[in-house]
Amino acid sequence: MPPFERGAASVLPIETTPASVVRFTDAQIDMAHGAGGKATRRLVEGLFLPLFGSSGDVLTDAVALDVDGARIAMTADSFVVRPLTFPGGSIGELAVNGTVNDLAVSGAKPIALLASFVIEAGLSRETLEREARAMADAAARAGVRIAGGDTKVVEHGKADGLYITTAGIGRSDPRVSCGASSVRPGDRVLLSGPIGDHGITVLLARGDVDLSSELRSDTRSVWPLVAAVIDQAAAGVRWMRDPTRGGVATALNELARDIGMSVAIFEEAVPVRDPVRGACELLGLDPLHIANEGQFLAVVAREYADLALAALRTTPGGEQAAIVGEIREQPRGGVLSVAPYGAARIVDMLVGDPLPRIC
Amino acid sequence: MPPFERGAASVLPIETTPASVVRFTDAQIDMAHGAGGKATRRLVEGLFLPLFGSSGDVLTDAVALDVDGARIAMTADSFVVRPLTFPGGSIGELAVNGTVNDLAVSGAKPIALLASFVIEAGLSRETLEREARAMADAAARAGVRIAGGDTKVVEHGKADGLYITTAGIGRSDPRVSCGASSVRPGDRVLLSGPIGDHGITVLLARGDVDLSSELRSDTRSVWPLVAAVIDQAAAGVRWMRDPTRGGVATALNELARDIGMSVAIFEEAVPVRDPVRGACELLGLDPLHIANEGQFLAVVAREYADLALAALRTTPGGEQAAIVGEIREQPRGGVLSVAPYGAARIVDMLVGDPLPRIC
Repeated sequence: MPPFERGAASVLPIETTPASVVRFTDAQIDMAHGAGGKATRRLVEGLFLPLFGSSGDVLTDAVALDVDGARIAMTADSFVVRPLTFPGGSIGELAVNGTVNDLAVSGAKPIALLASFVIEAGLSRETLEREARAMADAAARAGVRIAGGDTKVVEHGKADGLYITTAGIGRSDPRVSCGASSVRPGDRVLLSGPIGDHGITVLLARGDVDLSSELRSDTRSVWPLVAAVIDQAAAGVRWMRDPTRGGVATALNELARDIGMSVAIFEEAVPVRDPVRGACELLGLDPLHIANEGQFLAVVAREYADLALAALRTTPGGEQAAIVGEIREQPRGGVLSVAPYGAARIVDMLVGDPLPRIC
Repeated sequence: MPPFERGAASVLPIETTPASVVRFTDAQIDMAHGAGGKATRRLVEGLFLPLFGSSGDVLTDAVALDVDGARIAMTADSFVVRPLTFPGGSIGELAVNGTVNDLAVSGAKPIALLASFVIEAGLSRETLEREARAMADAAARAGVRIAGGDTKVVEHGKADGLYITTAGIGRSDPRVSCGASSVRPGDRVLLSGPIGDHGITVLLARGDVDLSSELRSDTRSVWPLVAAVIDQAAAGVRWMRDPTRGGVATALNELARDIGMSVAIFEEAVPVRDPVRGACELLGLDPLHIANEGQFLAVVAREYADLALAALRTTPGGEQAAIVGEIREQPRGGVLSVAPYGAARIVDMLVGDPLPRIC
């Protein structure tokens, strides 16, 4: 866990120790508490985990359950992206892919989704139908069934068109046993492709920034890429995560904290498209903090790293995968960007919410 | 299904035939589309079912899945009740009990929940903590774990304090095989207790109506009652449903339509507390249309009806259970209220939305 941590729905280990002391003392909830960074972590670890009885020392993207011998993963996520559509995707497509990806990076093949809608009265049929079609199409591409759900309507002005919550269930691949506790010094950090496309695309789609580009959201199911890694290097897979809200930096900081070791990032190896790099420079943002909706990080044992990388690169959509870092013993709990000539900078988690409601 | 039908999250059969013709033609979404009655059904059957590929001829409250031999039920529901608290309950408690109950009436013992929050920026910590505690307490009472979830925050004015979506997973009881297709003429309709408490309580809590009463929401887990019926009369259980949005009338109309037979209600046998009856008379509402959050309907084979009733009445909270109707062959697809002296009136589904956002 924490289950409520990231853009991803998240998880609890099945056996947990209640820790009922609520330590969350912020006076009110602000946008930053939903941004997936430090404030979200404070809320989840300080309020939800103590009350819901989990120890909070494990972070994953889906709950693992054993039901009558079947190994099941389950996850849930709410989507409140603004605007509802943007180049390369829309809220409906995100709602399917986001939940599919949470299952995928927990090593579970997605099976079925439930979709629950909160609709603002006055939403046009065209918009709802367009998003339902986007969901159906995304589900078909991802090979999952949308098996049920719920519809609620709130008064005009009490929502922002449409919020969608998806819950997903998957079958955990028996060949994979990953989690922060499996990570060892020397393990390699793999990244499936270029970062920041989604966050910057949504930012530009809002029109608040006077920039235009051909950038498109990277929203997609990462299951084919995850499956390729599992097929070729299952025994070496130690940890996986889709770096959504808070980006790669936040995901790796959470990992570093959970393992009590360091993650070194080879920043020059991290694929970033020019428009993302340009927008980040103009806006003072770090691509490592920008949300992704179609990428994942994998920590793989050193001896399996080349196999896993080859598996990614030979799978459609994984051509730009790269080894972008490694696990080191020191400094404990942090992420360091390591330059080729030995200079290093600390890469922190996302603080505040520079890009609200990107998923 | 339809999966999106009622206050309950709902369901799809595992094998479905796509019917891709969208027949929903309403120009926009209105409050009535979220009320659980005719408009909701039109939306679900006309838009979601065709696009999501289900046949729409089965209505249940949870999706049934077979994963590696394990029989699993899964459900999801969004909660947008206004106000957030009311006598006898609150949104957090509803969010747990509502999903627990959808599993229960599908014959599945609830195991775990995921909770996904959409929070309006500016919500006080006190409110969020109060609702998280209400969820933790309700989960403890219901014997389920809140195992994970998600947190999103939207700008002030873009939600109504707090919306909560819960997804639940349960283990289907192997002794039960219920569904509309199992229902036969002569089967009895059982009701677990008095109706309308929840809907009228929430209505009065809004202060729009100049009435006061000691009424409290009936929100609770119905699993102990369902389990008692299963333990004593599993072989006779044909169909179960929690009559939330749209009330008993809507649930039974859906049943009547699905089975192509008639449901006769013995209205004088339906338990209704005096304050509910009084409020309904004043407001021109039918108690049969008022939402419940702690009751369920069961259709039970005639020869098991007394056993099932005794099981309910001897379980705490089921003392006022009653046999309130029976299945008849004619008239097809409708619900009739049958008076002791032979008079009858047609009881329709809920039309419009007299009580918006009661769950």
